[in-house]
Amino acid sequence: MKRLAILGSTGSIGRSALAVVDAHPSRLRVVGLAARDNAERLAEQILRYQPAVAAVGSDAVAQRLRTLCGPAAPTIATGADGLIAVATHPAADIVLCASSGTAALEAVLAAIEAGKTIALANKEVLVMAGALVMEAARRRGVSVLPVDSEHNAIHQCLHGRSRHEIRRLILTASGGPFRELSPEALERVTPDAALRHPTWQMGRKITIDSATLMNKGLEVIEAFWLFDVAPEAIDVLIHPQSIVHSLVELNDGSMIAQMGVADMRLPIQYACSYPDRWDAGLPALDLTQAARLEFYAPAHDRFPCLELAYRALRAGGTLPVVLNAANEVAVESFLEGKLGFASIPQVIAGTMNAHEVEHVSTLEVVRRVDGWARLRAGELARGLELTV
Amino acid sequence: MKRLAILGSTGSIGRSALAVVDAHPSRLRVVGLAARDNAERLAEQILRYQPAVAAVGSDAVAQRLRTLCGPAAPTIATGADGLIAVATHPAADIVLCASSGTAALEAVLAAIEAGKTIALANKEVLVMAGALVMEAARRRGVSVLPVDSEHNAIHQCLHGRSRHEIRRLILTASGGPFRELSPEALERVTPDAALRHPTWQMGRKITIDSATLMNKGLEVIEAFWLFDVAPEAIDVLIHPQSIVHSLVELNDGSMIAQMGVADMRLPIQYACSYPDRWDAGLPALDLTQAARLEFYAPAHDRFPCLELAYRALRAGGTLPVVLNAANEVAVESFLEGKLGFASIPQVIAGTMNAHEVEHVSTLEVVRRVDGWARLRAGELARGLELTV
Repeated sequence: MKRLAILGSTGSIGRSALAVVDAHPSRLRVVGLAARDNAERLAEQILRYQPAVAAVGSDAVAQRLRTLCGPAAPTIATGADGLIAVATHPAADIVLCASSGTAALEAVLAAIEAGKTIALANKEVLVMAGALVMEAARRRGVSVLPVDSEHNAIHQCLHGRSRHEIRRLILTASGGPFRELSPEALERVTPDAALRHPTWQMGRKITIDSATLMNKGLEVIEAFWLFDVAPEAIDVLIHPQSIVHSLVELNDGSMIAQMGVADMRLPIQYACSYPDRWDAGLPALDLTQAARLEFYAPAHDRFPCLELAYRALRAGGTLPVVLNAANEVAVESFLEGKLGFASIPQVIAGTMNAHEVEHVSTLEVVRRVDGWARLRAGELARGLELTV
Repeated sequence: MKRLAILGSTGSIGRSALAVVDAHPSRLRVVGLAARDNAERLAEQILRYQPAVAAVGSDAVAQRLRTLCGPAAPTIATGADGLIAVATHPAADIVLCASSGTAALEAVLAAIEAGKTIALANKEVLVMAGALVMEAARRRGVSVLPVDSEHNAIHQCLHGRSRHEIRRLILTASGGPFRELSPEALERVTPDAALRHPTWQMGRKITIDSATLMNKGLEVIEAFWLFDVAPEAIDVLIHPQSIVHSLVELNDGSMIAQMGVADMRLPIQYACSYPDRWDAGLPALDLTQAARLEFYAPAHDRFPCLELAYRALRAGGTLPVVLNAANEVAVESFLEGKLGFASIPQVIAGTMNAHEVEHVSTLEVVRRVDGWARLRAGELARGLELTV
């Protein structure tokens, strides 16, 4: 029996994780749940899974949650401390970090210090503080298991192979809904169109990141920290069918690929079952029913976000923090209809150009640079605002 | 330094193996070479690699080889004993069995008894005597490493995974040159057309087996012995591009695939390097340059040889011996222009129907049934001979 704490339980990944728990009641138990502000859904989850601890973003949401749960309410904590309380609860073996954005960073570090296995579905944690997180995990002997389908795939492909067998990691990308658009058409892309992802159902922010290929750029940085390979040994391949979830090229030219249906329960379950593998009751992949599998090189010229991510990774230090923060600001402006799709990379590049790279020595440095980058990106975004 | 004896050194696989030796002069050394009757090519190989022992099929060929090699001639042995002398030479660590047909069976058993690692590129060895060979290998603690690209792929996919993770093995098949032909067109197929394989350059017999799908049927039986899974857990998928060399479905629905260029040096080298993996200097696979990857269910009705192989495997005992022998006879008749393409499975099915299955307790049983099946298949083939 493994005991699970979920940060971000009301989101898409969190709900898939609870579906995995439902499928394996004798193997998984929920001991902690954290969400930001969806008190209604969290209350349902609490009544069903009866965790020892829950956390929400604010006292107001906590109050609403207590009312909804009535006498069945567990300990309810709030804010950053609340997230840490769930992440470090003594009953938890695995902490699934599925809350989006940067809020989870401190909680993940606390969970590592508390010796928890980390199942990581949050990209920002490694993009912003990969050096701190992986160093802490090494020091504490804690596993950081990837839940992103791509990194989970690479983890599966690497399993059982020695370090010196690896030549290259290849992350696949659906290419997003605008893979074939001309530069002119990309200028006119609307938030609604960008939110229609061809293969995966995901949150709004990550769906836009998928359309700009920034999602893949962030994954390249994540892969660097998870698998400890050089930036130039991480490649991206556009694969519109999202059936091959990623590949590893070995040093004799052989490639190992992981394939499966596009269902997040699979990688979540594997992170929970690892090093075992459980019968999923999930639909298996039928390749005879699949479309043909296609692979293309990414169009770096039309999707400059990917190259910006490589630039940040190669420079290292705080530049990935800046990349991530500026991207969040730019995507938010785009979703609000204030910024054009093609201006997203402009905002990010402008912010990166204005930054002097520092060493990521503490979480303080990360927070300060993150704050600076958000302000700067906000200014740049306002300067590029759509006047229509 | 690993020391290699090659049974079948002048054939396609044997020559690829020597190319692998050329690429790794500090890792591999040739200590034994055996060929049936190509004295010229074997003499060249002997002069270049200076093995301690060589073997050929007959005294006449041996005499010619001595003349060609002059004073540089090594010990030259002949016939079945010659093959065994190469396979059991004290200097050999690995015996690559690449001689086609059934001649190598006794030599492989002798090599196993002598404690050699077996790199197996000969299908008949396991199809005819899988029970004897695998039992001997277990008893002597000897590895039988597959060189067929499909089994080598599965071996790579399984590496590091535990037995109970495996749900299904999926062997890919190019489908051969006649994948899309109607039953009527299949009737009129000529040997020349059948010898034009779309993706792999191979010998004549195996190329015809590839066109009838019997090659895949034999591989299903081989996989049964190599990987110890139930017949119903071994599937075949037509994949005309021959880029995915085979796949494993794990028990959570996840699939692991091995991909690569269609070059036999890769699996040969992996069998030699295992459990290490060496930089090949071989062309890596560029998926952006590859055709789209397609997968189809095999058409059992138009290619009955595959189903015959499953039938033989499920019945077990000596029925795979009969399948294999009848197939060899039928293919030979087809290549001689005496038998129609569509009559190949008729000859095999007729021979199988006439056989009473026995337990494979000794090599004697195998040889006797093999002999019986060849006679019977010959009679059936003559009865179906083309009258044109």
